[in-house]
Amino acid sequence: MPETAKRSFPHNFSPGPGAIPEVVLAETREALREVPGTGLPLLGLGHRTPWFRSIVDEAEAHVAALLGLGPDHRVLFLQGGASLQFTMIPLCFLRGRGRSADYLRAGYWSAKAVPEAEREGRVKLAWDGRPGGYARLPSDGELTLDPGAAYFHYVSNETVEGLQFDRVPGLDAVPRCCDMSSDFLARPLDCSRFGLIYAHAQKNLGPSGVTVTVIRRDLLEAIPAGLPPMLDYRAQAEAGSVYNTPPVFAIYVTLLVLRWLRHEIGGLAEMEKINRAKAAAVYAALDAAPELYRLRAPRDQRSTMNATFTVPTPELEARLLAEASDAGITGIEGHRSTGGFRVSLYNAVTLDSARVLAGFLGDFTRRHG
Amino acid sequence: MPETAKRSFPHNFSPGPGAIPEVVLAETREALREVPGTGLPLLGLGHRTPWFRSIVDEAEAHVAALLGLGPDHRVLFLQGGASLQFTMIPLCFLRGRGRSADYLRAGYWSAKAVPEAEREGRVKLAWDGRPGGYARLPSDGELTLDPGAAYFHYVSNETVEGLQFDRVPGLDAVPRCCDMSSDFLARPLDCSRFGLIYAHAQKNLGPSGVTVTVIRRDLLEAIPAGLPPMLDYRAQAEAGSVYNTPPVFAIYVTLLVLRWLRHEIGGLAEMEKINRAKAAAVYAALDAAPELYRLRAPRDQRSTMNATFTVPTPELEARLLAEASDAGITGIEGHRSTGGFRVSLYNAVTLDSARVLAGFLGDFTRRHG
Repeated sequence: MPETAKRSFPHNFSPGPGAIPEVVLAETREALREVPGTGLPLLGLGHRTPWFRSIVDEAEAHVAALLGLGPDHRVLFLQGGASLQFTMIPLCFLRGRGRSADYLRAGYWSAKAVPEAEREGRVKLAWDGRPGGYARLPSDGELTLDPGAAYFHYVSNETVEGLQFDRVPGLDAVPRCCDMSSDFLARPLDCSRFGLIYAHAQKNLGPSGVTVTVIRRDLLEAIPAGLPPMLDYRAQAEAGSVYNTPPVFAIYVTLLVLRWLRHEIGGLAEMEKINRAKAAAVYAALDAAPELYRLRAPRDQRSTMNATFTVPTPELEARLLAEASDAGITGIEGHRSTGGFRVSLYNAVTLDSARVLAGFLGDFTRRHG
Repeated sequence: MPETAKRSFPHNFSPGPGAIPEVVLAETREALREVPGTGLPLLGLGHRTPWFRSIVDEAEAHVAALLGLGPDHRVLFLQGGASLQFTMIPLCFLRGRGRSADYLRAGYWSAKAVPEAEREGRVKLAWDGRPGGYARLPSDGELTLDPGAAYFHYVSNETVEGLQFDRVPGLDAVPRCCDMSSDFLARPLDCSRFGLIYAHAQKNLGPSGVTVTVIRRDLLEAIPAGLPPMLDYRAQAEAGSVYNTPPVFAIYVTLLVLRWLRHEIGGLAEMEKINRAKAAAVYAALDAAPELYRLRAPRDQRSTMNATFTVPTPELEARLLAEASDAGITGIEGHRSTGGFRVSLYNAVTLDSARVLAGFLGDFTRRHG
């Protein structure tokens, strides 16, 4: 048995919906009794109230402040997760434009975006990682980019494979549409280089059920008329993210996480330092036993958010899972498409939890390596 | 000042997101500490877990049991609210079918469905209440129904106007698609007469962010291939309502409400009795002062869910709102499109709360009638 002390609740490395900061969980429990200043519980508060408008406005302001956004960008809170963004982007920016879009297919999630775009127009693959089993990301020299493309779509962190870009690929002349679902607000970001960024909340931001989109105003204004309003960024922006009844609970908890990120953590540079320390601790324990832990990603493309690896035999895999569970460690199973292990280190996972996991991996090496 | 005793929290007649049963709020607070049997807080539990599968399965089973559904119907949990259903229905059942669809335009919400269908195909209005200001519902004899229509769409309870059907309009030979967002599971229902029923959760079922759809299997099977999976009922059904990350929190709380409805209330017939008693108490207080309270709906079409009325002057309106607030009564403002008052009496509003409101309305009459 590992020596790691058991806590009253497990160290949660879930790939999403992921852990929520302890302080936010406590505030959420209290809000279910009464939201400060309203006299009512969080469930039962209307969305057409000055209170909810102030919640959305404050959440937008925190995102804008964390990212240093200027008036050129709008922040939206939408429903349907990244999967509905896969449809909305080509509907708004590809259909009927007489141009093609460049898509980078470099992992499970960026691959899922491609057929959704192909329903609406012509897609060119700027690079295709599928023949190589999504084992690595491309270099800039490998990309085939069309300067006349309607937009360029990629995924900044391939959460299933554990691959993360440490640069911004693409041409500055072509609007970048980036799925940052698994690393949004986990590090500083120069939004001026993006036309549209989207991220569902349930990894770094809050509960599942809400998706944050940051969109440049000139793209908003170019959306053609006549689209279904629920799938139209412009209609959603004109309605201030309240076109229809929004997920009030998920947006409120996201606001609490944004306050925590800004005021308790201290912003994205501080968050990145913590995230790098967490990843360093876990990768060091994995690297110390290369025969036991077989990492998927090339060293310079390793994700700070998701460390993915396999062990040599099914017996060791089962043993690692069981001993982790005994050690109060949960959520480390790999994605159903790959098997193996995936350790997710999203913003709310503490450095303490990462160190506990690293210690456990070291202990496991000593017993079974 | 009215004599109604002040409670620690208001009597909430919100039009939605509406009140949640007290016992469910308490269970939800506890689940944010730890969901029974999981060792983890509700926020942080993954959706690709046996636990979450059991939550969806149990929620489906409760809906099926409450409605007496047989194997001909499927229950789905979707995102995007009724507004996204307005788009999904014509996308799946009208586009490219070479047939038109019949729509009943009888209020604010059924009117919003019409342009969404017109994007995808030809729409015939089976009846149009707009010229009459949506003051009443049609009789069966007034409907113009096409026996060759792809489907017939209507809204069972027009929540803005306070109009409710006490019958099932339409032809049995044409699939009925019914928006029951504001009276689903508030009374018994013969689902065999419907092809598709949908209801967002935030009135009678749970928090905002999840929509329940009951769909007949033959309609599912007739959906053409090639639609965006997020907008395709068949893809959602094949994925067991977990095509992408669902709103885990909203579905869990909906399950708690369904357990309460089935096991504490005792089912739909019992729920209807309570809802009728609530509505009777409120309408009696309104009817007692016809010069003061001017009801919108014809008597035989009054909604048991939403009582809508106006008072003669803006001064009385402001006074009623202020005195209601002092009496611990909230959420009674009318819809922004109509003004006046709307008292919503969804499932979680107690008979006690309805009686308190009725008492307040009587007191107000004595002071200002």
